[in-house]
Amino acid sequence: MVKILIIGGVAGGASAAARARRLSEDAEIIMFERGEFVSFANCGLPYHIGGDIKERSKLLLQTPESFLARFNVDVRVKHEVIAINSAAKTVTVKNLQTGTEYNESYDKLLLSPGASPIVPPIEGIDNPLTHSLRNIPDMDRILNTIKMNKPEHATVVGGGFIGLEMMEAFHQIGIKTTLIEMADQVMTPVDREMVGFAHAEIRQQGIDLKLGVALQAVEFMPTEHVASIESGENEAHQHLQGQLNLTLNNGETLTTDLLIMAIGVRPEITLAKQAGLQIGDLGGIYTQPNMQTSDPDIYAVGDAVEDQDFVTGKQTLVPLAGPANRQGRMAAGNMLGRNETYKGTQGTAICKIFDLAVASTGQNEKQLKRDGVDYQKVYVHAASHASYYPGAEIVSFKMLFCPKTGKIYGAQAVGKDGIDKRIDVMAVAQRAGMTVEQLQDLELTYAPPYGSAKDVINQAAFVANNLIKGDSTAIHFDEIDQLTADQLLLDVRNPGELEAGGSIAGAINIPVDQLRQRMNELPKDKEIIIYCQVGLRGNVAYRQLVNNGFKARNLIGGYRTYKFAKA
Amino acid sequence: MVKILIIGGVAGGASAAARARRLSEDAEIIMFERGEFVSFANCGLPYHIGGDIKERSKLLLQTPESFLARFNVDVRVKHEVIAINSAAKTVTVKNLQTGTEYNESYDKLLLSPGASPIVPPIEGIDNPLTHSLRNIPDMDRILNTIKMNKPEHATVVGGGFIGLEMMEAFHQIGIKTTLIEMADQVMTPVDREMVGFAHAEIRQQGIDLKLGVALQAVEFMPTEHVASIESGENEAHQHLQGQLNLTLNNGETLTTDLLIMAIGVRPEITLAKQAGLQIGDLGGIYTQPNMQTSDPDIYAVGDAVEDQDFVTGKQTLVPLAGPANRQGRMAAGNMLGRNETYKGTQGTAICKIFDLAVASTGQNEKQLKRDGVDYQKVYVHAASHASYYPGAEIVSFKMLFCPKTGKIYGAQAVGKDGIDKRIDVMAVAQRAGMTVEQLQDLELTYAPPYGSAKDVINQAAFVANNLIKGDSTAIHFDEIDQLTADQLLLDVRNPGELEAGGSIAGAINIPVDQLRQRMNELPKDKEIIIYCQVGLRGNVAYRQLVNNGFKARNLIGGYRTYKFAKA
Repeated sequence: MVKILIIGGVAGGASAAARARRLSEDAEIIMFERGEFVSFANCGLPYHIGGDIKERSKLLLQTPESFLARFNVDVRVKHEVIAINSAAKTVTVKNLQTGTEYNESYDKLLLSPGASPIVPPIEGIDNPLTHSLRNIPDMDRILNTIKMNKPEHATVVGGGFIGLEMMEAFHQIGIKTTLIEMADQVMTPVDREMVGFAHAEIRQQGIDLKLGVALQAVEFMPTEHVASIESGENEAHQHLQGQLNLTLNNGETLTTDLLIMAIGVRPEITLAKQAGLQIGDLGGIYTQPNMQTSDPDIYAVGDAVEDQDFVTGKQTLVPLAGPANRQGRMAAGNMLGRNETYKGTQGTAICKIFDLAVASTGQNEKQLKRDGVDYQKVYVHAASHASYYPGAEIVSFKMLFCPKTGKIYGAQAVGKDGIDKRIDVMAVAQRAGMTVEQLQDLELTYAPPYGSAKDVINQAAFVANNLIKGDSTAIHFDEIDQLTADQLLLDVRNPGELEAGGSIAGAINIPVDQLRQRMNELPKDKEIIIYCQVGLRGNVAYRQLVNNGFKARNLIGGYRTYKFAKA
Repeated sequence: MVKILIIGGVAGGASAAARARRLSEDAEIIMFERGEFVSFANCGLPYHIGGDIKERSKLLLQTPESFLARFNVDVRVKHEVIAINSAAKTVTVKNLQTGTEYNESYDKLLLSPGASPIVPPIEGIDNPLTHSLRNIPDMDRILNTIKMNKPEHATVVGGGFIGLEMMEAFHQIGIKTTLIEMADQVMTPVDREMVGFAHAEIRQQGIDLKLGVALQAVEFMPTEHVASIESGENEAHQHLQGQLNLTLNNGETLTTDLLIMAIGVRPEITLAKQAGLQIGDLGGIYTQPNMQTSDPDIYAVGDAVEDQDFVTGKQTLVPLAGPANRQGRMAAGNMLGRNETYKGTQGTAICKIFDLAVASTGQNEKQLKRDGVDYQKVYVHAASHASYYPGAEIVSFKMLFCPKTGKIYGAQAVGKDGIDKRIDVMAVAQRAGMTVEQLQDLELTYAPPYGSAKDVINQAAFVANNLIKGDSTAIHFDEIDQLTADQLLLDVRNPGELEAGGSIAGAINIPVDQLRQRMNELPKDKEIIIYCQVGLRGNVAYRQLVNNGFKARNLIGGYRTYKFAKA
């Protein structure tokens, strides 16, 4: 009878416990969770705060009792494993309710401790109005602060998933919100120019978005008893009340009623280090593709581990729920004698930002640049379904690929409809090893309410292959502001579009449908830099000009990419 | 200078004309269209009748003038090519407005004539109240009949895409509707048991759905002048007014005000036959993978051609817009010296049926059975996104695969949300040659509003791999009603679920969470046939029983599959 101990009872740990029992009825399985809750919906926490998920109980997917009944797993909440003795194959457990400690032996041990929010050493950060959000008690504390203090203004530091979701949650319950992000963009898995659409949306919703700014100091200003007496709350909570004065690194100051720190998470490796397990260069627990750590009887999964990047094969830290769940399932199999291997992480991710979805898979351009990879890219903006059917929205899509082999490096998409679908298609195609040439042939669902006969992905593939085959020569948005005297900027849109949506300074305007007749207005000794709204008519114009002996380049993604890159 | 003639100005022809011009500025390109319109949105026609697409003009994507201005293509509408002289490389064209005929020479000829509605030789079918729907004039005729006659009841014959869309259109504008389908199901690309969800939805919306019934005779009963005088319409339209008496092959009769024949389409091959081109066994124009016909200077694309089935490699007829568009683009390239090959058709399709989407890709079970292919299948019913986040709907999913190699044969899905996405994922995975084992590792977008940490597809892959590895033994819905005395039916749901949603006669009920304690109530000499609502708890129970020495099988897809298979 094999004895399996599992440390951590959320995504990876809970998946592992359930699978282990399905594989073996007689294994002894004990799951330790230092918190009060197992298998809760951590991804749902911001949505309960924002009111989308009304019932707190919906976040509690399993209880120790339900785990016991269904899977015969001995779940010990409020039990913290404080030491691993890998030589003796025992762990030391502390019962957090009684304070007593005891040892438990194992045949196989699984670490699924997760990651913890990074709280930087900022002066004054330790105060009753500053919170992180990682688990149910965190959420309850934030909800309690909202209930007690009725904040009018909240500040969120960090523009990642949790930061953006908390920003939206506050906005949704009528709290004015400032979002502070040190980088020049939110949602760093996506490249800067693609996230411009999100910046525009965030600002349009009335959020005070501060990019390229860091929080430097926090001062807690407690209020007198007035507030609590007026609100009739009991005395015990009076200490919570007050405001925070924030000092930013650009000299600005800000008064806020509630501060959320969401700048990121760090793998929980205290136990792993203590046990002498190998830690990777990125600070996560080193794992092999079968989820074994450097100790063959100890496995590790989830946010605490380093696994392999699917594209580069390098070690990576990707704290996401999908990989954690699948790794947990796999580790359970391997602890019970299976031979399953994790095939690497693409980092596929999506975030709802008000009405927008922002999503990506694979490598982004920043990573490719940093690694010195030779890449090409295309931008396409196309309707989420047949444009003549109601409800179509623009899908803004970016695809990165190898200009020689057509290998897919990564993809990003932003828009109000069909974003998850396009990135899912790309995630599958990338995992299957398809090239951008093969993407031309994808046969996706089409009926007017759902898609287009030539989907966004087909179109992006056409554009990419035009570049690879030399049927098109690209210029990208970030080169447009540095044109030389030997280049001429040509806007091929209709005059009405220029008036309504703006245009690029210095461009001459010949609508594409007049170009054949007016070609003589253009010089043959200059390179004609063509642009239209999204790049499609630009390509028609490009082909006309090049086939008539002109030198030309087409702005990939058109004016729309150029414009939103600055947002 | 190459001279290209294109016959047919809609999806395939229009795509070809545009690409040909982009590739060559000096090619002479003439496109003949016997109708009045080019490049119209034929997939949008039912949605304009139903009022979703308000403006008729939105269906007219291009005009001869816009084609000339942008692509310098000489578009000749109301010009019918009536003969091809392939030896002389000329066509004979009839100007349908003047009646004059002339010859036009070609270097390369593209046939994109489409398909025409099949109107069976039913007695009385040729009457003013019976219509097909294939093009703008058809649509205008139907709209005119609705406007003039104000029908209270319409009958649609044929439960394919057009039939279903017309059914919904009529329902939407307040016309009571009967749908007659000769097969025992609508939407034949999807298997019978999956389409049960659609039958339930159709009936719930108040449609009079008649399956397994054929139209036998039609009698036109003209009415007197009363109706038109009352409605104040002019005399010219009086002949339209009346009713139809329909006789069905089951002896039923039916009176209706409007009849739509939508039993399918047949490739337009008159010209191809006259030109001596090879016609395939299925009645379409034979094409090679480069879209060449048996005459190397004549290419053919779209609904008129036979191409290769992606899965079987056999000739197939797939009249869908996506393949037509991509084939047209490809044929243009090849006519101008490229070497592009069409990679086969999966038949990926989707149809909106009221609030449901029904979609499929690849081979269905009927086809696999007919071809004697060894296959296995799984059913999964899972939430379209995190079930704790509002708006999640059940995705009912079926996957067909090779039990030895795990090769994907096909997939089908039905539900109110996320159906297009799941079938797109499967279409990509199938085209890329992935196995169901590899589908376990798919890393799809996940945040609560968009997906689940273990997506429907991951779950289906887990179930499939359990079957392949022998971790699970399947029983399918269609075997449940033929259990023997050596089998015992065990319902592992909670008693409340049985009361609320029904159960299978003869089952005993032990909730899964009590099973470990009550296992002694079960016989070891019988095979325990386990079922739950969707198959997940059934699998937990299966593993418990088998690991404790019982013989068992689990109903894949659970009670939900069993129940809706009968709908």
